[in-house]
Amino acid sequence: MKTRISESFAKQGMMATLGAHLDTIEEGRVEISAPIAPAFTQQQGHAHAALSFALGDTAAGYAALTCTPPDHEVVTAEIKINLLAPGRGTHLKAIGRVLKPGRRLIVVAADVYAISEGMETHVAALQGTIVPVPL
Amino acid sequence: MKTRISESFAKQGMMATLGAHLDTIEEGRVEISAPIAPAFTQQQGHAHAALSFALGDTAAGYAALTCTPPDHEVVTAEIKINLLAPGRGTHLKAIGRVLKPGRRLIVVAADVYAISEGMETHVAALQGTIVPVPL
Amino acid sequence: MKTRISESFAKQGMMATLGAHLDTIEEGRVEISAPIAPAFTQQQGHAHAALSFALGDTAAGYAALTCTPPDHEVVTAEIKINLLAPGRGTHLKAIGRVLKPGRRLIVVAADVYAISEGMETHVAALQGTIVPVPL
Amino acid sequence: MKTRISESFAKQGMMATLGAHLDTIEEGRVEISAPIAPAFTQQQGHAHAALSFALGDTAAGYAALTCTPPDHEVVTAEIKINLLAPGRGTHLKAIGRVLKPGRRLIVVAADVYAISEGMETHVAALQGTIVPVPL
Repeated sequence: MKTRISESFAKQGMMATLGAHLDTIEEGRVEISAPIAPAFTQQQGHAHAALSFALGDTAAGYAALTCTPPDHEVVTAEIKINLLAPGRGTHLKAIGRVLKPGRRLIVVAADVYAISEGMETHVAALQGTIVPVPL
Repeated sequence: MKTRISESFAKQGMMATLGAHLDTIEEGRVEISAPIAPAFTQQQGHAHAALSFALGDTAAGYAALTCTPPDHEVVTAEIKINLLAPGRGTHLKAIGRVLKPGRRLIVVAADVYAISEGMETHVAALQGTIVPVPL
Repeated sequence: MKTRISESFAKQGMMATLGAHLDTIEEGRVEISAPIAPAFTQQQGHAHAALSFALGDTAAGYAALTCTPPDHEVVTAEIKINLLAPGRGTHLKAIGRVLKPGRRLIVVAADVYAISEGMETHVAALQGTIVPVPL
Repeated sequence: MKTRISESFAKQGMMATLGAHLDTIEEGRVEISAPIAPAFTQQQGHAHAALSFALGDTAAGYAALTCTPPDHEVVTAEIKINLLAPGRGTHLKAIGRVLKPGRRLIVVAADVYAISEGMETHVAALQGTIVPVPL
């Protein structure tokens, strides 16, 4: 399972571009982090919503992948993000988890935290639907 | 209005990183496009959902900005994306529009299209809430 | 198609309770209306968000049903509602439509209008995912 | 706080129509339940998505109200529901909670459970935005 997810992650050009790192892979739970660099900011200099989205969506998708048969991969059908606080700090950390596994649909959630001098701020909450598709 | 939006767009590190271009600014409607480069793909080589999200969210946010007083900027409170088709082609184009202006909340939508050899495919639909904040 | 949808609608206890009426059925588009009665209000006396939701979700679901094989019915996987204005007036009218048909998932939208003395106010916008399931 | 919420709940025609009961009120957490009666079903005889929505949205709204000044009430700006399982059983129970309090926006979540012979099934997860408005 870990190999399968690491290999898929390594194929994502976007994850490399964002400098994202796959930190933890457990059954139904995946953690991804990335730096808040100037290249990924919005007009006020904080992390762009799309950075929180990218990490949260990817962590949630791989959490779903831990619940699918080995001959499947996953795609996001839909996901919603509520932004709770500005993304200020050195890193973002996203924790994706499975709310409800399923053969046709997997309902997922993710929480994104900004890390600044060891303090964590909850900056985004995502909830969505992932679809397993045969390889 | 166009100057204000262009200047804000130019401050977004993420838009530069994605190679995004501000194509059209009208009252309540903004169009942004970006190339589908290998640096912005998911594991199957198509545009990452986060690329569609980044362009759709930003186009919707600037559409909202066309409806706010000059001494305000905007932040996204929440937005949802439904992915309709794989993002295959050379470019993505996002069209953001205002569904309902307001002093406290602006409800917005965006549609994202993949462009391949002159053909457009509707790849994502977004609906969300933008909040005007004093500068 | 019209018979199939009318029969399904007639089986919904909730639609009868709300006094809802199936007004129009077209390929990919369904219209449902219901009175804004005191029994369906929130604490300020306007239409409860759940009334707008009930009509919008049902109109969107039946719009999806117009695009599914005859031996299937549909269930809502997820749907999001943005409330645009208070539901004041005599009736609500919901128009559901298909954004993207599909064999496994159908992406839908709905708009809900409050009708007061012949005037229509856009009170809610919904976007969601409907799943065809074999009967 | 409990009096304020109970009085507001009692003014909601929709809650009376659904036979809903305000079970628990705590700081940032409210629980509401209602019977799954034939009057509130969809075409397969299970709880209508609008019943889960009504309870989840209302529980989340009142959870938000526990975090607002006494001279304010709350309205839902937007909310999304993912339906996880059919609503089969005798009752639905919704637990609303505050994810992020705020002066302008309160981000909330709710979980809805179907209760059948003492067993609880998680049937819906909601995530949304509540707006405090002066009375």
